[in-house]
Amino acid sequence: MSIGILFGGSSYEHEISIVSAITMKKVLKKNELEFIFIDSDREFYLIDSDNMKSKYFSSLKYKKAKKLNLKYGGFFISGIFGSNILNLDVVLNIIHGRDGEDGKIASLMEFYNIPFISPRIEASTLSYNKLYTKFLAKSLGVKVVDYEHLNKSDKREIKTPFPVIIKPVRLGSSIGVSIVKTKDELEYGLDIAFEFDEDIIIEPFIEGIKEYNQAGCKTDRWELSIVEEPEKDEFLDFDKKYMDFSRDSKVLSADIDDELFDKIQDSFKTIYDPLFLGSIIRCDFFVVDGEILLNEINPIPGSMANYLFEDFDLTLKRLIDHLPQEKKISIDYKYINSIQSAKGKA
Amino acid sequence: MSIGILFGGSSYEHEISIVSAITMKKVLKKNELEFIFIDSDREFYLIDSDNMKSKYFSSLKYKKAKKLNLKYGGFFISGIFGSNILNLDVVLNIIHGRDGEDGKIASLMEFYNIPFISPRIEASTLSYNKLYTKFLAKSLGVKVVDYEHLNKSDKREIKTPFPVIIKPVRLGSSIGVSIVKTKDELEYGLDIAFEFDEDIIIEPFIEGIKEYNQAGCKTDRWELSIVEEPEKDEFLDFDKKYMDFSRDSKVLSADIDDELFDKIQDSFKTIYDPLFLGSIIRCDFFVVDGEILLNEINPIPGSMANYLFEDFDLTLKRLIDHLPQEKKISIDYKYINSIQSAKGKA
Repeated sequence: MSIGILFGGSSYEHEISIVSAITMKKVLKKNELEFIFIDSDREFYLIDSDNMKSKYFSSLKYKKAKKLNLKYGGFFISGIFGSNILNLDVVLNIIHGRDGEDGKIASLMEFYNIPFISPRIEASTLSYNKLYTKFLAKSLGVKVVDYEHLNKSDKREIKTPFPVIIKPVRLGSSIGVSIVKTKDELEYGLDIAFEFDEDIIIEPFIEGIKEYNQAGCKTDRWELSIVEEPEKDEFLDFDKKYMDFSRDSKVLSADIDDELFDKIQDSFKTIYDPLFLGSIIRCDFFVVDGEILLNEINPIPGSMANYLFEDFDLTLKRLIDHLPQEKKISIDYKYINSIQSAKGKA
Repeated sequence: MSIGILFGGSSYEHEISIVSAITMKKVLKKNELEFIFIDSDREFYLIDSDNMKSKYFSSLKYKKAKKLNLKYGGFFISGIFGSNILNLDVVLNIIHGRDGEDGKIASLMEFYNIPFISPRIEASTLSYNKLYTKFLAKSLGVKVVDYEHLNKSDKREIKTPFPVIIKPVRLGSSIGVSIVKTKDELEYGLDIAFEFDEDIIIEPFIEGIKEYNQAGCKTDRWELSIVEEPEKDEFLDFDKKYMDFSRDSKVLSADIDDELFDKIQDSFKTIYDPLFLGSIIRCDFFVVDGEILLNEINPIPGSMANYLFEDFDLTLKRLIDHLPQEKKISIDYKYINSIQSAKGKA
């Protein structure tokens, strides 16, 4: 099985995508891996496995690596005797944030007919934008945390009582997120969030709330991970999140009763199927008074949430064998011919 | 002003996109135009203006045209002395249906940093899928026609009283749409719609309903078309729709009072701003008891709805001067360097 690990991208999360890709090298060592890096100028590079170290990228040494061209059917390496296709069974999209999660990579892979693991375009749009995630969850009957939406051009007034958590609408990995405890701190929190996005959401911050994470995918059956109760500081900031993206050791299943376990799994399934077919996602849920609230969908979770799966290799393999296929549309020009014929031109 | 007319695509609406592009040749004759055709295999071809006739495509003669490569910064023509960029100020996406309206072209243009007129990715997802359009409109306080959603795997029972109109969720141009007057005809109508999509919506069919179309865009001001009351047969089928895609003569403004006119324009503005910035769209509204209901958003309307604008050339020019810019993200590897440094490896 030859897997192309696609990472980097023009994204605020470019650097942690590198960390995720390095983790994939460790986790997927039984597979043949090709590392495809997208730099900040959106050039594609084929990275030698030995060079999969963060320093190689931060020192810009990667610029000496072979460039790849994306064309119909795959990635191509230019050589003296023309262009050769890079042999891949599938591309694993591990670009966090823009490019990877906003639907661009899904679009490119679908357009150029390359098998890939990633949320498809619709799933990307609805999960990359936290506001649309709320619409989606509500339409599926999954409860969400209360929120209000503020655009950069709106008056800077909020109705949610303090403390609140402020998030840019379109970013992951806690970038631009802050907890605001009093009115005095509001301006600063809004400034930070608006630095990254025109739109932000404000939610009540609930101290000590119970959080549970569930990852998984669907093939011809459900392939679900354990349910984890993540350790929390006040909240995970960008540095601490590094742990998430480099994690490769197993964690313990949360100590919860069957009823809660079932509720979490059911909510995950409701969100996932059929929108997220073809991808491995992680959903973060809150539990308040026995009720499940969707906090966030991580459409491309740090290190693919490998640490939550009993056998991540097997899960991935099964998913690769059950990827959704784009519908073939055959174009026969019947319509144009009939118009021509009606006009007496045929 | 050099405009690249991008048309064709792997879409059920491939052929009417050709008709739209031929109309653009007539309508935009004052501009320098380049015609970029995407065939059903998603190869790009540069089409000579003289060959912009439907027969050229239906006879597959286009396959002898020059191929283009899409790369960072533009479309490239391969020649004996290397590769030359096709000079364009902007690309006008006129691919109806899949590829053009589902976010793929928007993704490709954004990824490769090519200025383009088209709904962006989020706008594409929310308008290409009629179900998501309902969510969007409702979240903005714009009323919609009642509906129910049926997936292919659902039981074939509907609650909406007859007559109903059945539509595939993801198609335009009335493809797969049928009006079902009695229960006997239901199976057939569902079969037709499910042939084109896994998801369909069912709406009450209201005989003789008043319909009004509004097209436009926003630059540093609103650039709105007249309001048209389209002539209707029972409904517009695919053949009759041909008219829409080849229209290039002006129509008259609907004979409505100021209050209704304002309501229609307000609803359009609410839908458009800011999601659809960078595109010219047409919204089709119904009026029931003086109330405006959004029927459909046409994210890439037939012939760009040019016939609705007083001065389409000027509208387009102004839009080109006010296209939204993708935010530049600079990647400085500070984060990786700080991790390296913390690990004592820097």
